[in-house]
Amino acid sequence: MAEAFRAALAAAARETQDVLRERLAAHDLPVAQAMEHAVTGGKGLRGFLVLEGARLHDVAREAARLPAAGIEALHAYSLVHDDLPAMDDDDLRRGQPTVHVAWDEATAILAGDALQSLAFELCADPLVGSHRADLCLALARAGGIAGMVGGQARDIMAETSETPLDLARITELQQGKTGALIRWSAEAGAVMAGADAGPLGRYAQALGLAFQIADDILDVEGDAAKMGKAARKDAAAGKATFVSLLGLDAAKARAAELVEAACDALSPYGAAAGTLRETARFVIARES
Amino acid sequence: MAEAFRAALAAAARETQDVLRERLAAHDLPVAQAMEHAVTGGKGLRGFLVLEGARLHDVAREAARLPAAGIEALHAYSLVHDDLPAMDDDDLRRGQPTVHVAWDEATAILAGDALQSLAFELCADPLVGSHRADLCLALARAGGIAGMVGGQARDIMAETSETPLDLARITELQQGKTGALIRWSAEAGAVMAGADAGPLGRYAQALGLAFQIADDILDVEGDAAKMGKAARKDAAAGKATFVSLLGLDAAKARAAELVEAACDALSPYGAAAGTLRETARFVIARES
Repeated sequence: MAEAFRAALAAAARETQDVLRERLAAHDLPVAQAMEHAVTGGKGLRGFLVLEGARLHDVAREAARLPAAGIEALHAYSLVHDDLPAMDDDDLRRGQPTVHVAWDEATAILAGDALQSLAFELCADPLVGSHRADLCLALARAGGIAGMVGGQARDIMAETSETPLDLARITELQQGKTGALIRWSAEAGAVMAGADAGPLGRYAQALGLAFQIADDILDVEGDAAKMGKAARKDAAAGKATFVSLLGLDAAKARAAELVEAACDALSPYGAAAGTLRETARFVIARES
Repeated sequence: MAEAFRAALAAAARETQDVLRERLAAHDLPVAQAMEHAVTGGKGLRGFLVLEGARLHDVAREAARLPAAGIEALHAYSLVHDDLPAMDDDDLRRGQPTVHVAWDEATAILAGDALQSLAFELCADPLVGSHRADLCLALARAGGIAGMVGGQARDIMAETSETPLDLARITELQQGKTGALIRWSAEAGAVMAGADAGPLGRYAQALGLAFQIADDILDVEGDAAKMGKAARKDAAAGKATFVSLLGLDAAKARAAELVEAACDALSPYGAAAGTLRETARFVIARES
């Protein structure tokens, strides 16, 4: 079962990467190659959530794969900019040199910028259907100052702040930094169908928090080789995380509780949501 | 007449800045203040083009001011990232310290990123009307690898290339770097109304090229104090420009021809397009 799930996740990642590669193939510029590098090799979790949510709402795969590729482009842009020397200054991502290392900083800035544009281009495509504007609006909010960028800004502020973060503030930070895009991804299929996104939204909220706690656990327990990026960065930076605040065992217990809550939120979909339940379990079981 | 035009341009700039300030006021973060700094003090030419094109197509001002503010946010993001040390490394913009000087590089990267998101948030607003998705799609293309970012990338490549640019290549570069957003701005009103954007598109194509030639002339003849940014940067960098390729007099003659062509393209609108004709004349007469 877990094997079948991993295969489905990998197949979806290939599918969204193919959409992105096809869009970039027309452009014979180093920045286009840098964009392709940036969207290659990820788990494709966000795109997978879009595809699964769309399946539950009978949205055609040809339509759903565009926002699925779009959210992967948006996520990739955030990583490219996050890895820049002025930000996290990371040399390694998904086991490969980061964009500013493989090319240069100017190319990394521009590649990130164009990946964000590409995300909106894919979501606004007429093939996405009559709710494409709502999808764009939700993506702009999830990615902007009230969502992901706001979370990143709070994260940077926390690093230089005298007062360490408490659990409430770290949860708020997570809801922006990683939660907003995960929620958009899970809700996208319902939005495309013009249906109630409530159950998928509640699923995503629990999933996003579980995902961040699992990330903090990985930072402590993870294997840098398997993760394809540096480990123990947070502890080295003396950063408050769910693990440093709760302790390792309580953090694991909290993540498991959240996965159960995520699965419960899917009850209106019955057995059809089995893959999304597996996704939630995968999120805390993953090694990278 | 020129005085009335300048007053109308300044009033439109205040209007779009007010929209942006209102959107940012809810966010008590340094990055939000940096975003506000970045959208303050510009001429607001792109937003003005949106408002004027919308007026010609009887689009309500409350609807038109959102994409007008959106394109100013997108333009501001491109300037913030363009000014970064890894790009043009400029300390001064619109007579004020650039964002990475007044704050820091990380804040400038994030502020630019969130300004791009904000641009799409404004264009996708339900108040924009039933063509808001088309507006988002056109903006994503104009801002992305096939438009502005592609032009910026070509510009960077040209700086390090052995072969100097010829007139055809420099025109192609301009059509991406500054032309795409100007064209989107001029066409936006027609797009919002679901009308033929052909005449406004032809106007914008001539206008955009005239604008770039005027920029190259300003770089040679301009007063850094009036421009609020450094002058003679291109000559110092040994960069091929319309002035270096055509000579100063022929460049001025070409810009004047283009302004006439821009005005001619507006003939279907008759006298109603008087302000857009003045805009075209302003573009080559401006001192900053």
